[in-house]
Amino acid sequence: MTTTSSVLAAQATDFPRWYQDVIAKAELAENGPVRGTMVVRPYGYGIWELLQGAMDRRIKAAGAANAYFPLLIPENYLRREAEHVEGFSPELAVVTVAGGKELEEPLVVRPTSETIIGEYLAKWVQSYRDLPLLLNQWANVVRWELRPRLFLRTTEFLWQEGHTAHATAADARAYATKILYDVYRDVMVNVLAIPVVAGRKTRRERFAGAVNTMTLEAMTGDGKALQMGTSHELGQNFARAFDIGYLSSAGQRELAWTTSWGSSTRMLGGLIMVHGDDAGLRVPPAVAPVQVVVLAVKDTVLEAAQRIADELIAAGVRVVVDNRTDQPFGRRAVNWELKGVPIRVELGPRDLAGEVATVVRRVHNTKSPVALSDLTTTITSALTADQSHLLTSATTSQHARISAVTTVAEAIEAAADGWAAVPYDAVGESGEDQLAESGITIRCLQREDGTLPTEDNEPGLTAFVARSY
Amino acid sequence: MTTTSSVLAAQATDFPRWYQDVIAKAELAENGPVRGTMVVRPYGYGIWELLQGAMDRRIKAAGAANAYFPLLIPENYLRREAEHVEGFSPELAVVTVAGGKELEEPLVVRPTSETIIGEYLAKWVQSYRDLPLLLNQWANVVRWELRPRLFLRTTEFLWQEGHTAHATAADARAYATKILYDVYRDVMVNVLAIPVVAGRKTRRERFAGAVNTMTLEAMTGDGKALQMGTSHELGQNFARAFDIGYLSSAGQRELAWTTSWGSSTRMLGGLIMVHGDDAGLRVPPAVAPVQVVVLAVKDTVLEAAQRIADELIAAGVRVVVDNRTDQPFGRRAVNWELKGVPIRVELGPRDLAGEVATVVRRVHNTKSPVALSDLTTTITSALTADQSHLLTSATTSQHARISAVTTVAEAIEAAADGWAAVPYDAVGESGEDQLAESGITIRCLQREDGTLPTEDNEPGLTAFVARSY
Repeated sequence: MTTTSSVLAAQATDFPRWYQDVIAKAELAENGPVRGTMVVRPYGYGIWELLQGAMDRRIKAAGAANAYFPLLIPENYLRREAEHVEGFSPELAVVTVAGGKELEEPLVVRPTSETIIGEYLAKWVQSYRDLPLLLNQWANVVRWELRPRLFLRTTEFLWQEGHTAHATAADARAYATKILYDVYRDVMVNVLAIPVVAGRKTRRERFAGAVNTMTLEAMTGDGKALQMGTSHELGQNFARAFDIGYLSSAGQRELAWTTSWGSSTRMLGGLIMVHGDDAGLRVPPAVAPVQVVVLAVKDTVLEAAQRIADELIAAGVRVVVDNRTDQPFGRRAVNWELKGVPIRVELGPRDLAGEVATVVRRVHNTKSPVALSDLTTTITSALTADQSHLLTSATTSQHARISAVTTVAEAIEAAADGWAAVPYDAVGESGEDQLAESGITIRCLQREDGTLPTEDNEPGLTAFVARSY
Repeated sequence: MTTTSSVLAAQATDFPRWYQDVIAKAELAENGPVRGTMVVRPYGYGIWELLQGAMDRRIKAAGAANAYFPLLIPENYLRREAEHVEGFSPELAVVTVAGGKELEEPLVVRPTSETIIGEYLAKWVQSYRDLPLLLNQWANVVRWELRPRLFLRTTEFLWQEGHTAHATAADARAYATKILYDVYRDVMVNVLAIPVVAGRKTRRERFAGAVNTMTLEAMTGDGKALQMGTSHELGQNFARAFDIGYLSSAGQRELAWTTSWGSSTRMLGGLIMVHGDDAGLRVPPAVAPVQVVVLAVKDTVLEAAQRIADELIAAGVRVVVDNRTDQPFGRRAVNWELKGVPIRVELGPRDLAGEVATVVRRVHNTKSPVALSDLTTTITSALTADQSHLLTSATTSQHARISAVTTVAEAIEAAADGWAAVPYDAVGESGEDQLAESGITIRCLQREDGTLPTEDNEPGLTAFVARSY
């Protein structure tokens, strides 16, 4: 909420400040009254809705069904899985009074729902025929944050959390991996235009209660890493704690294997940090609530502006007409640029007389006159091209900023301004401690061929090392 | 969660028990671990998603944009509007500990968001140009319930809550009324197939902090009333409490006028109670997650069953193939009947040989053979017809169970088994007390022509009087 200037901080000078400025000036979000909470404003929420739709369709295609579990969890549920409670205890918000009375047992505001969903999986899974049981929920969760940052780390955030039960470890692993690739990576790459590196977390970075955490990591404009989504194999930890068992086809009682996986409003932070530039946001067309704004320069062109919009809307484009001709044109144009609307169609009386409009593409900042008769075709193909341009350009910068190094010392140096790819054999758990002292983490481990290791101690792994948000 | 019998309680014998049974056996929802909370299972949530989509499209068409505000509200916010805090205090859940520490100020888990949204409306509304400001959010809310009942009254529920600010009282009233009719009534009547009576609440039944509450009331299968959605004029109460003001075009500072309006998962309770019968649920096709189930009698027809399903899916129908041929056919059929799936297509080897399938329509419980070549056409038109049949039939029973009476005593008698329509002049506030002693309330007030009064004390109003859920 800067009031001193209408310009953003420069990315190169102060990236975190630029990030804050963009969020405020593009009217994406604001701080809530309680420290660390967030108000998502309509423009930010509009992006979230499109992202959510894309994610939800893929989750359903992967066979999971949506359900809804309660926000308030009896405190004793969390205690049933030792690592889980240890990991989450410092972050809990606790309801102790309700209906005017002190509660006998405090209730935790869900920080994640493995425990409460585990309780119901145990009821619903009886026989091998009930497996796999594949659930997802869209919900808010609360984790008390010490260093909150809008979208990236907020005390309350919106997310989806999937929870599944399987008959075998192999089936659980296959499903958690499918979610990572076919749902999360597909959305991030093909909808958000964000290239992500897939890998396995080290034990230190694993989800509390998991036997394996798989992650997708994006590179921000300042060369740091951002965890965009994770998928966990929970082994039989929660199955044991909540007694999720089943009768096998051989009539034997067996413990199930469970998974959980989540992606959140944090992805919007990724979108801003990956695609934004010094002029503001650049929203990929696939999640742009406004793909095209038609800017009427003067009142006399309003009718023509509306006709252009109608034709685009009929072609399935999301369009807004900016008819605020009583306000300075330059200020309006800058505002839409800030908001990262992919295409501006500027229409003045002279354009109209010449039967053209000026098309400005946010992604390249190019400006060119286009005949009104070609406008819809030009724009629909520009939207497709600009979506893929954002991905290509983010991929190129990501590759350019990953340095292949061979020692921990070199990795620390490289992480000052990008990521390092270093042989995990040269790091190990002691090297990981050393990195941590410099505020650097192993983001994930990958095999040489880019696939995911199934064990921490496989030889020949590459560690991606970076500072992170 | 009865285990003694596979049958439902009869509606006529014990309607509340029938309601519980249907919810459990159709796998719509279960009780959560904390008293009054609810787990919405995939089948119930699937109906909710379709209902939510229908509602959301209409809310957007009415010009409101979605946003998201924090769950946790500083306690002092609620205290700023005297009636509001008085109304909600007994129902609040309060977070007193977070991040391992006692909080300096307790945080209320939102029971509704007028206060926190009011705080932001005050920031965002500066000039008359910013008005009207039309917001909506989809969210969970928590109200401590003494007598919880799944869907109808749960400690946590899902809803949408709209919050708007306007320059004039007339504009606020017009918008709140538009939401009541064009959004809520339209969804209830044309999507849920539930006839509703629109009216104004008496002062006694008004939302805490409102100057006018408008309501839509449905009649349940046992002749009671169920409030399905409300739209409130808040006057300047919240504008005053949160200082929501604006500069008029004349350059004068004015207070805004606000509205709020909500509809929730309670509507699913309405759907069950209005359309259900002794055989279970009857889901209106418009919100049926499964509109058609194709039941394969034997393995030999599986391929043909899938072909039928594919053709229906291509025609835009939501279809499931029941291929569990290792389970008794009768039990499967009863299960789909219980779940209220609008159409069952039963396909056995003999049917297939005769190039027909048996079509069972849940709404009428009719069973007839249909040539495979006509199946898709027959089914798509049956879905349309059955949607409108449910509405007609619910409307007919509603009309039949409203008795026109002239005294409070007669109203009490009529409310034993239906609703009473009684001149409000014959009731008044003292009559309302008398009704309350018999557990009966005035559901709403209407003018003779069916429109909504703008004042409580207009002469010639009709009071709809009933027991309610």
